[in-house]
Amino acid sequence: MSTATYTVKGMTCGHCVNAVTEEITKIDGVTNVDIDLASGLVTIASERDLGADEVREAVDEAGYEVVS
Amino acid sequence: MSTATYTVKGMTCGHCVNAVTEEITKIDGVTNVDIDLASGLVTIASERDLGADEVREAVDEAGYEVVS
Repeated sequence: MSTATYTVKGMTCGHCVNAVTEEITKIDGVTNVDIDLASGLVTIASERDLGADEVREAVDEAGYEVVS
Repeated sequence: MSTATYTVKGMTCGHCVNAVTEEITKIDGVTNVDIDLASGLVTIASERDLGADEVREAVDEAGYEVVS
């Protein structure tokens, strides 16, 4: 089990949170995604260590940007 | 043909616009919905005069509120 935290820019509402959650959940091995809309903090639990690139791509696919 | 304009509160992103557009488009007779996100202005073209209640209900269904 692994947990990683990213900050995502541009999410403004629950729909945005859903879109990001949906794309990140598609990454192989992801078991849970928790997003705090106000702070943009995205916490990802996974069965393996995820590459930052994988996460960045998924967030990009949803239409948002990982800033850290 | 009829055109009506409403102001909707709470839309913050394109997903919100899509959600409101989708619900209003379901109203019988609606032919076009145009939404300006920045102002919240929703312009509805329809084949008949729509009741304000119908529009209010559709916007509510999408999770937002008609303010005028």
